[in-house]
Amino acid sequence: MMATRRDKAPMAITVFFRVQTKIEKMVDLTQIMDDEVFMAFASYATIILSKMMLMSATTAFYRMTRKVFANPEDCVTFGKGENAKKYLRTDDRVERVRRAHLNDLENIVPFLGIGLLYSLSGPDLSTAILHFRLFVGARIYHTISYLTPLPQPNRGLSFFIGYGVTLSMAYRLLKNKLYL
Amino acid sequence: MMATRRDKAPMAITVFFRVQTKIEKMVDLTQIMDDEVFMAFASYATIILSKMMLMSATTAFYRMTRKVFANPEDCVTFGKGENAKKYLRTDDRVERVRRAHLNDLENIVPFLGIGLLYSLSGPDLSTAILHFRLFVGARIYHTISYLTPLPQPNRGLSFFIGYGVTLSMAYRLLKNKLYL
Amino acid sequence: MMATRRDKAPMAITVFFRVQTKIEKMVDLTQIMDDEVFMAFASYATIILSKMMLMSATTAFYRMTRKVFANPEDCVTFGKGENAKKYLRTDDRVERVRRAHLNDLENIVPFLGIGLLYSLSGPDLSTAILHFRLFVGARIYHTISYLTPLPQPNRGLSFFIGYGVTLSMAYRLLKNKLYL
Repeated sequence: MMATRRDKAPMAITVFFRVQTKIEKMVDLTQIMDDEVFMAFASYATIILSKMMLMSATTAFYRMTRKVFANPEDCVTFGKGENAKKYLRTDDRVERVRRAHLNDLENIVPFLGIGLLYSLSGPDLSTAILHFRLFVGARIYHTISYLTPLPQPNRGLSFFIGYGVTLSMAYRLLKNKLYL
Repeated sequence: MMATRRDKAPMAITVFFRVQTKIEKMVDLTQIMDDEVFMAFASYATIILSKMMLMSATTAFYRMTRKVFANPEDCVTFGKGENAKKYLRTDDRVERVRRAHLNDLENIVPFLGIGLLYSLSGPDLSTAILHFRLFVGARIYHTISYLTPLPQPNRGLSFFIGYGVTLSMAYRLLKNKLYL
Repeated sequence: MMATRRDKAPMAITVFFRVQTKIEKMVDLTQIMDDEVFMAFASYATIILSKMMLMSATTAFYRMTRKVFANPEDCVTFGKGENAKKYLRTDDRVERVRRAHLNDLENIVPFLGIGLLYSLSGPDLSTAILHFRLFVGARIYHTISYLTPLPQPNRGLSFFIGYGVTLSMAYRLLKNKLYL
């Protein structure tokens, strides 16, 4: 790989060059996190995923306080045999949280996938952050509208904002980087 | 970090070298998108995620046209009090779309995760594209089979093709890059 | 971009430099897979996603052996007309597998998203591997507890370990890389 050299000057440069290259390689992976768009995506994605995880805790909370369970082994502490079986039921509030959770999954999964690829496609920083903020805001408002519940079209509107943001990122991604 | 230099020639090279390095660092992140396998993955993943998002719109469409709702606040426009409650019901067609949507989630999430890591593990371009095309084709055919509905084994077959493609990528990934 | 050069020595170096740069660019993408934390994440993520995919096969297995179906087109081989409709029912065991599958989705999606970003944020290798191992172990134990079923708090405990691991990664990620 080394070209033949007859002078001494390049030798020093080559050494310097190799050191530089090695340092560069080591920081290579963390470089991805120095990219502002990617760092913004990482922050917003982590926030919205943590919010989604709260839905599990909310379901568990309502199941415990309302004594509404889906599995026989979960309600043995409340009674034996037939007495326990009466807690195997569905409840409006628990079902509401579960629907909100499933809706989160259905919308956050496309945001994660498309958003990650969109962040790597070199978008404008302010445009990208606008997308991320709108999505995270809309999904948090969606959860509030679903669980309160607020009258429509609060929930419908917040759903469509999140939906539109993801489609907008998908459109920009495919426009720039389509490779089939 | 700089080696001592006594001649002038290397100075020019060093300056040139630094400029080059800086440019390289700036384009570093977009380089990931210059990789053909990754670009192909990004395109197919975005397409299949957009298809999955269509299922939300399809559910909303059937809920509106068939007046089948899951939440009391969604059907207040159709009547007050007890009159509205009759729209809180389940419907075969709506449940069918929801099952198709959940099946999409259950299969597209592993494809996204495993496919992303597989794309980064340096696979052969044509092999990778074959995997992506088969998966996307199979999932689109799965949705058509589920919603029409087509008689079995149309849906079963399309499910197993998508399933097999994801497992094949998982196998190649673990064979090359297992690190526990 | 090229500085004017009057001597011949740098020419050789420039050529060498360009070759080196080109090689570097080509291996750039596979470098991400040379990172030990990322490789470990890829392995554990692939394993847990493959485990999740097994739930689809388990559901299919129970549906076939217990003749419990959700779609009319799935049970035509067992009888015509009204005779087939009796197989459109729900079954405790099938519903149990489906709940375990949905719980997997709800927990593995945040792990994938947060774990990927956490892996790229340059964590300590042993800390990262501890997180991944705990999560994968806890989720496998969760599935065993859910499907056997084992008495509580087996399932509850395994759920909270996986939940805590993901939150711990989210916390470390946001602490280091918050960019809103």
